[in-house]
Amino acid sequence: MTSERECINRILHYVQNHNREYLIKGIGDDCAVLKKDEENCLLLTTDTLVEGVHFDLAWHPPYLLGRKCASVNLSDIAAMGGQPRTCLLSIGFPESIPSWFDDFMSGLTSVLREHDTLLVGGDTVKSGNDLILSVTVTGEGSRKQICYRSGAKPGDLIWVSGSLGNAAAGLELCRKGFCQPAGISGKWQQLIHAHLDPGPEVDLGIILSSSGFVHAMMDISDGLATDLAHLCQESGVGAEIQKDLLPVSVLLENAAIELNTGVFDWVLRGGEDYQLLFTTKASDEQNLLQLVSDKLGREMFCIGRIVDDQGVFLCSGEDRQEISYQGYDHFSG
Amino acid sequence: MTSERECINRILHYVQNHNREYLIKGIGDDCAVLKKDEENCLLLTTDTLVEGVHFDLAWHPPYLLGRKCASVNLSDIAAMGGQPRTCLLSIGFPESIPSWFDDFMSGLTSVLREHDTLLVGGDTVKSGNDLILSVTVTGEGSRKQICYRSGAKPGDLIWVSGSLGNAAAGLELCRKGFCQPAGISGKWQQLIHAHLDPGPEVDLGIILSSSGFVHAMMDISDGLATDLAHLCQESGVGAEIQKDLLPVSVLLENAAIELNTGVFDWVLRGGEDYQLLFTTKASDEQNLLQLVSDKLGREMFCIGRIVDDQGVFLCSGEDRQEISYQGYDHFSG
Repeated sequence: MTSERECINRILHYVQNHNREYLIKGIGDDCAVLKKDEENCLLLTTDTLVEGVHFDLAWHPPYLLGRKCASVNLSDIAAMGGQPRTCLLSIGFPESIPSWFDDFMSGLTSVLREHDTLLVGGDTVKSGNDLILSVTVTGEGSRKQICYRSGAKPGDLIWVSGSLGNAAAGLELCRKGFCQPAGISGKWQQLIHAHLDPGPEVDLGIILSSSGFVHAMMDISDGLATDLAHLCQESGVGAEIQKDLLPVSVLLENAAIELNTGVFDWVLRGGEDYQLLFTTKASDEQNLLQLVSDKLGREMFCIGRIVDDQGVFLCSGEDRQEISYQGYDHFSG
Repeated sequence: MTSERECINRILHYVQNHNREYLIKGIGDDCAVLKKDEENCLLLTTDTLVEGVHFDLAWHPPYLLGRKCASVNLSDIAAMGGQPRTCLLSIGFPESIPSWFDDFMSGLTSVLREHDTLLVGGDTVKSGNDLILSVTVTGEGSRKQICYRSGAKPGDLIWVSGSLGNAAAGLELCRKGFCQPAGISGKWQQLIHAHLDPGPEVDLGIILSSSGFVHAMMDISDGLATDLAHLCQESGVGAEIQKDLLPVSVLLENAAIELNTGVFDWVLRGGEDYQLLFTTKASDEQNLLQLVSDKLGREMFCIGRIVDDQGVFLCSGEDRQEISYQGYDHFSG
C-alpha cells in the first residue's frame, strides 16, 4: 500500500531550484507562503474532498458540507496565523447540478462571510463518478508574525486549542446511525457537530501569531500523533506528551463506553479536529493563558514538551511509548 | 440538462458585497485579480481535469498529461497578460499511486520550468472512482497592463493568435484510433499534439498586455463561438467574424475530409485550442503585426470586428448567422 507520505516524497523530488525572491516557503507547511510586499506575505492552501472518502451525504447535510469545505481550508490559514482573503471553488458533479447545491453554496459562503473571505472564482466540471469539491483559499499576514511548523525548540511547551477526538467520535457515531440527515440532535450532538461542522480557529490563530509567544504552529487535521510528528520533523526535534494532560471531553468518554471502544484512539489518531497545535517558551505559559483568556475568554491546553530526541512519545507514569505518525493516512486505512 | 452557465449563475447568486480594497476582479474573467501592492496585482486561477471526461489515458501519455494540466492553467494567466509564479497540485487517485505518476510529474514540472513557475504545494487524496487532477496557478502583473475580457469597443479588430480547431480534430483522431499511447507520429501528428500538449501563450500574453494595444483578451478554451460570446457579454458589445478570415490549417482540412466531417465545427465549436483571443483599435493593426513579428517572429490573425449589436455573428458574403455560445459546455454534450 502506498502511503500519502511516499506520494508527497515523490512529488518533492520534482520540487527543486526554488530560490526565487517571491517564494518564502513552498511545500511542507499548512500553506505555501509568498512574498506580497516588504511587510506582508500571501498564503495559499488547497484541499480536495471526495464523496464516499471525505464525506458522506447520507448523513452530512449539504449546508454543513459547504461549511466544512470552506472551514478545512480556512483552518490552514489559521494554522499560520493569517487572515483569510479569497476562495476559489472547483466542483465536479457526475451528472447535472444536484438539488442540494443551493444549500451547499449557502453553507460555504456563510463560513466565508464569518471570516471576511470572498469567493472570487473557480471551475465547474463534469466528473466521471465522484462528487468532487476542491477549494483553494488565499490569506495574508505579516511576514514577521506568520508561524511555521519549523520553529519548535527543545524545552518548549506543547499546546492544543481544545478537546481532541471529538470529530473522529462524531464520524463513528454517524457511521453507526446516530445522525439523521434531517438535523443533529440528541446527546451526541456536540461530537457529531465536531465532525460535520468544524470551526476554523482563524481569530485564535491571529491572536497567537501576533502575540510573539508562538515558536511553531499547525492545525490538527490528520490526528495529534501524525501532526505533531510533522511539526517535530520540520523543527528537527521530538515531543513528549503527557497522557493525563490531553483534553478529553466527558462526552467523548461516554461515547467510547457506548461504542465499546478506547477514547485514546480517537484522541491521538482521529483526524479532523482542526484544533491548533503550537509551542511556546516555557516561561510564556502564564502570558499565553492570560492573553487567550482576555481576548477570547478561552482556555488553552498544555499537553507536553518539546525534547531533543527524535520522535513523538506518549508518557504515562513511567511508561514512554513512541506514537509518531499513527494517524490518518490518505491512502491507507 | 443543466448547463455550466446555469451552474455559474447560481454560484454568482452567492457572490455579493465584494467591495474590498484588495479585490480588483472576482468571478467572470480568466483569473481572479487581487491587489498585490500599489503597482502590481496577483492573478489566481484553478482548473480540474477528470479522467474519462477531460482526458483519456488510453491515448494520453502521462508525461503529456502532466504538461497539459499545467498548461491549461498557465493559459489563464497568459490570457490576462500576466507572468505565472506558483502552482498548487491536488491529486485524487482511486487506489495507490499509479506507475506512471513520475512521468506525469516530470511533464507537469517541465512546463512549469519553461515558464519559471514553482510547484509550491497541494494535496494528495484518495478518490472514490475517478482520477482527479486539480491545479491552481498564481501569477503576477502590472495593474495598468493586465487585460480583461471587458474592454472591447465597437470598431475594434478581433484577433486570434493561431490556427483554430486543431485540438478538437486531434481529440477526434485520438478517439478514432489514430493515436497510440507509445507516442505521436504520422501525418496527423500536429493535430494530435495540439490536443495532447497545448502550449500556453505566456510570452505572447505578456507582449500583448505590455504593448498597450489590447482592449480585451481571453484564451480560447471552450471554442471560439462560446469564448467570443463571453468576451462580448463582459464588454457589452457584439462581434462579427468573417468566415474566410478564420485561420484554418491545411492539415485540418485534410483531417475533415479523412473523417468525413466539416472543418468549421472544429474551428468554431471545438475547444481547447488555448490560442489567445483579443481586440485592438483598428488603427493599431500594423503596429500589432509589427510588434509580434519583431518579438516572436509570428503572425497574428484578424478574424473580424466588434460591433454594437449583441451576439456573435459569422459572416460569409451576404450571409450573417448568429453563433453565440455554440461551443463546449461542461455539463452537456
